[in-house]
Order: sequence, then C-alpha cells, then structure tokens
Amino acid sequence: MDRLPTIEDVARAAQVSRQTVSNVLNTPAIVKPATRKRVETAIRKLDYRPHASARRLRMRKSSTIAIRLDPMTNGISGALLDRFLHALTEQADARGIRILLFTAADPVAEIEQIRKLRAGADVDAFVLTATFHGDPRTEWLVQNNVPFVTFGRPWGANDMNNPAHLWVDVDGFSGMREATINLIDRGSSRIGFIGWPSPSGTGDDRRRGWQEAIQERLDLGEGDLTALNVSIEDRLEDARDAVVALLEGDARIDGLVCASDTLALGAMIAAASIGRNDLPIIGFDNSPVGQAIGLSSVDQSLGEVAAGALELLLGETGGDLIHRDGAAGDIRHCLITPHLVIRQPLRLLAPDAE
Amino acid sequence: MDRLPTIEDVARAAQVSRQTVSNVLNTPAIVKPATRKRVETAIRKLDYRPHASARRLRMRKSSTIAIRLDPMTNGISGALLDRFLHALTEQADARGIRILLFTAADPVAEIEQIRKLRAGADVDAFVLTATFHGDPRTEWLVQNNVPFVTFGRPWGANDMNNPAHLWVDVDGFSGMREATINLIDRGSSRIGFIGWPSPSGTGDDRRRGWQEAIQERLDLGEGDLTALNVSIEDRLEDARDAVVALLEGDARIDGLVCASDTLALGAMIAAASIGRNDLPIIGFDNSPVGQAIGLSSVDQSLGEVAAGALELLLGETGGDLIHRDGAAGDIRHCLITPHLVIRQPLRLLAPDAE
Repeated sequence: MDRLPTIEDVARAAQVSRQTVSNVLNTPAIVKPATRKRVETAIRKLDYRPHASARRLRMRKSSTIAIRLDPMTNGISGALLDRFLHALTEQADARGIRILLFTAADPVAEIEQIRKLRAGADVDAFVLTATFHGDPRTEWLVQNNVPFVTFGRPWGANDMNNPAHLWVDVDGFSGMREATINLIDRGSSRIGFIGWPSPSGTGDDRRRGWQEAIQERLDLGEGDLTALNVSIEDRLEDARDAVVALLEGDARIDGLVCASDTLALGAMIAAASIGRNDLPIIGFDNSPVGQAIGLSSVDQSLGEVAAGALELLLGETGGDLIHRDGAAGDIRHCLITPHLVIRQPLRLLAPDAE
Repeated sequence: MDRLPTIEDVARAAQVSRQTVSNVLNTPAIVKPATRKRVETAIRKLDYRPHASARRLRMRKSSTIAIRLDPMTNGISGALLDRFLHALTEQADARGIRILLFTAADPVAEIEQIRKLRAGADVDAFVLTATFHGDPRTEWLVQNNVPFVTFGRPWGANDMNNPAHLWVDVDGFSGMREATINLIDRGSSRIGFIGWPSPSGTGDDRRRGWQEAIQERLDLGEGDLTALNVSIEDRLEDARDAVVALLEGDARIDGLVCASDTLALGAMIAAASIGRNDLPIIGFDNSPVGQAIGLSSVDQSLGEVAAGALELLLGETGGDLIHRDGAAGDIRHCLITPHLVIRQPLRLLAPDAE
C-alpha cells in the first residue's frame, strides 16, 4: 500500500465497522474480546498508526489546495466565507501554498469536481465549508482517502471524534454565551434569542449558549425560555417582522442576542420602528455591514480558523485543542473561541417611523 | 518562434519604439518613409498579425487563470473585488477554467509571483485588478508576453488603445452622469459630489460624469462646481465630517452623488445628524452594506465585467466595444455601462442626534 493505512482499511481487514475500530482504540473495554483481538491483529498487520505525528500532507510540486466558491447570496452574513477565503489565501501563501477555486451547484456536484481535480493530480488537498448533518462529501473524501479539512465540525454525533475527518470550527456556544452574559452584566434581565429553525447544527449550538447563560445567571423559567426564543430564516425582513411581534408581545424584553448579523440588523430596524432605539442587540459574524452601522457582534476569528485549517492539513501543531486522538501532539480537530466586539450603534429610524 | 509575434518583437526587429510600430499600423502618414519601410519589412518577416482573430489564449491542460487576492481592507467598497471574484469563478467554471489565488504585498511582489507561477507552467493567464497610473505590472506582462487582462483600464493616456493590453472596465463617467441626472429629474437643482482626491483615474472619471450632467442640465457656474465638489479619502468618518461641513456651509444643497458607497454612507449619517434625513444620496458600487440600508447606488455589473475579461482573454467576441484595433470582431477592450439602482433608504439617526 503506497499510502498510510486508515481506520477504514483496518475495519475492512477485520470485517468490522469503523466505529468498532474506534472503540477498540479508545474504549476497548466495551468491545467483545474476540472482536477486539481481530481488530488488534489487523492494526498490527497493516501497521496502522492512529497517532502518526508525521506531517500529514506531503505537498507535491503543485502545492495547491482547492476550495469551492459559491455564487454571492446574502451580502451580510454571506461575506463570512469571503473573509475566510482572504485569511486562508494569506496564511497559505505564507506557507508557499496556492488556493484553487472551483464551483459546484450542490454536494454531489462538488464531489464530482473534487474527483476531477484529483484525477488531474494538480491539487493536494481540499478545504470544505458549510458542513451539515449527513454530509455526503466528507464520507466520500474519507472513503477515497483524499486529504481534506472542513471549516465546520461534522454534525453527526459519532463523527465528531473521527480521526480521519480533520476539522476546524468556531465555538458558537461559547460566543453566544459570552454575548448573553455581556448583556446581563450591562443590566439586561430578560434577553431574547433570535435564531434559525432547528435542526441546524450551527444555529442550535448558538442557541444553547444563550440558554445556558440565561439559566445560569437569570431567574427565568422554562416558559420564559420558550417565549424568548424566536426561530426564523436568515432574512432581514423576516427578522424585522418577528422581532416587532416579539417586542410588542412582551414589553419587558431588555436585550436581544442573534445568531447572525442579518438577524441582528433586522432586529435593530424592528426595535427602532417601535421606538425601542435603546434596546441592546448583539449579532454574530462581525460582518462589514454590522461594523459600518456600529452593531455589536461575535467575531469568528477567521484568521485563527484559517491557520487552524492549514495546521491540521499539514500536521503542524497549534490551535485550541478540544479533542486529542490519544497521543499528545496529534491534533485533528480545532475549536476556536470567538470574541465579542462591542460597539456604539448608529440609531436607525425605519422608513415608516416618522 | 513558438509563440505569436508581438508588437514588441516587431519593434525590436525594426529597431524602433513600440509607439512607432503602432503609428505605422494606425497612422502611417506621420511616420518617415524610411522608418515605415523598415517596420513593414519586420512585420512581413515576423508574420506579425495585429488583428489575429484566432483565439488568443490556447489553454493548456491546466486551464488555470491566476488572480491576486488582497487582505480584507474596507468592508464596504472593498467587497467589490470579492463580488468580482465570485462572478469570475462562476464564468470561468462554465468554460472549464479554474481560478488560482495568490497574494502579493505590492506591484513588484506581484510581478515576482507571476514570474514564479509562469515558471511552474501551471497558469495560462492572469487577471489583474486595480490598475493605476504608471502601473509597472502591465508593462512587464506585455514585455514578457504573458497573457493577461486587467479589470481597470490603463490610466496613462497612450496606453488606452494599446492592443497588447487587454482590459475591461466600468464606465464610471456614464454611471455618475446617470445618477446625477436621476436626481435632477427627481427635482434636485444643486447637487454636491463627494469623491476622492485627484489624481485618481477612477475617481476623476466619476467626477467628470457629475460635472457634465450639472453643466448640461443645471444653471450653475464654475464657482458653484468648485463649491459643490468635495475630495476626501474613502473613509466613512472622513466623509461624514466633510459632508456635515458642506451642508452646514450651503443650505441649498438638495442632493449628493458619491464616488463610493463608503462615502455615501458617511454622507447619509452626516445628513441625518443635522436633520437632513430627506436629502437624496446616491452611492457607487451597490455594495451589500448599501443594499442592507436601502442606499441608492450605481451597480458595476460585475457579471458582465467577468464575462468581458474572459471573452477578451479567450479571444471570443462580446462586450461593449469602445476600441476596435482595426479589423472587425477583434475586440481588445471592453467598457461596461453600469446601471443605477434606486432604493427607499432607511432613515438613520446618528448616535448624538437625539
């Protein structure tokens, strides 16, 4: 075998599932002795080293990493991936690596593009963005032994710790928790959350951050949590209408945290339109739009995300560790802690408010 | 010679300047007969065809075009090149071409990067952005016979018509003229222009559009034009302060056109802060920030710009013709007409306005 053996190779050789191999490595006590023995034999036979500290990616002459670039959609939060691309290009350049762009209409088309780029042998590895529940791309990449890293953790429970899936992500939970606590420290005692409909890996994670801060620091019950929790698609107008309804239905609300700057801008316009210009609002993404109008927001620290992605691909150490796959130094997953940026907002007056 | 001969090859062979070759081709009457004969001999000997209608760029296996990506700067107007990159990637993909990104700190470093990428033989052509007076990059590319196209015309007077320099640009003059006339048609009779300090190719071009509309349609003298013309760096705060001073010094001003959305947003905040929420303002770039707050703006039609750039590189026809280098169908320069987007603005109240 020309390449390093993977957990899948072991699973195939031992005729067990990948999960079973992982169990043998991490929690051997729960595996039946006969199965364990078979897996251990396969590991020895293939010389599988789950914690190889060698540089993962042997860059070829091309030294090129490819990433999909989508058509422009939402100009507010959509710019996030552009900012990631800038950071990635800069960090890659510092390592002598180029970034190649391609497009794809959907995950299946993206797999096909990756297959073609691999066949042309001019790309060493792939960076994937916007991971989701049951993402077929990462499964395909693992199966086909293609070097890759995702910006976004795998959202299926079992996949989070898969050593074959390198990922870097931003800790939305802690970011939203910090934003909520900031409002509490500034005097808010009834804080609403404007987020996306469940299930959404990213959205639910951010919602949990708000929820934990509320439960820890405020005297609010389950009924309040339900009443203060708004789920809405990521569109400015929808957020505006939903927040008007929320604030008109509950005059005691004295703060809002939002899962995106798009939602936060809608919330600002809503608050202004009913004379609540004073309502403190915090968004998420620290978008250029938010910066221009003085919106407070959670910044995803995209420079660290880009550095983390490259370090994982190249097998360098670094980044904030959340999962060590056994041996020290072999980091395969990075969870970046975002940081809160507080600004003095411009006051907005909605068009029909005069 | 493996490649097609260029105007430089002819100049070298005839021991004259490039300009002299160009004169022989375009205005032979002004060239001394002896010189003309020497140049014509060189043209025949080299089989130089200035108007070759064959596809200019013979894409090799890599089918890759490279473009420099800068670090993120201004989040408002700076996003323009990101939007261009999206459009370019999409249009290139439709032609089976990939986009490779690299970074460079300055024009000299960019030339060095281009040299390296050419040496590696994995890039077919280059797209350059942000051309400027005396741009050393384009001169180097022409001299070294590297296929390229610029988004941005060459701003030196003699270079505009250089057939060796393919370029696509947006007609800022006509865009700003249309914006100004739109305000006049809606009743404005004293319209200020907020632009960048001269000399600025792009900025001066946009200023001329405002100026021509004013001179054509309004009864204003030279003194008025001077008083209504503000030059300021492209920063929101600077624009805000300058527009406050402008409006406080001249209460009759009843409209503003701005060379960028950054300036226009500063102008909106300035107007709101002194109770002039009603002042019509038009920006330039149709940025996501502008879209979010309902700013009217001139849209650069980046899809057309991207298509034009690729068509020029590939020797396809298309785009708005401003210069035909002799033979019909051989378009080497595209000037795209932008279009005006009128919106109902949100009302802004500056922080200290209450």
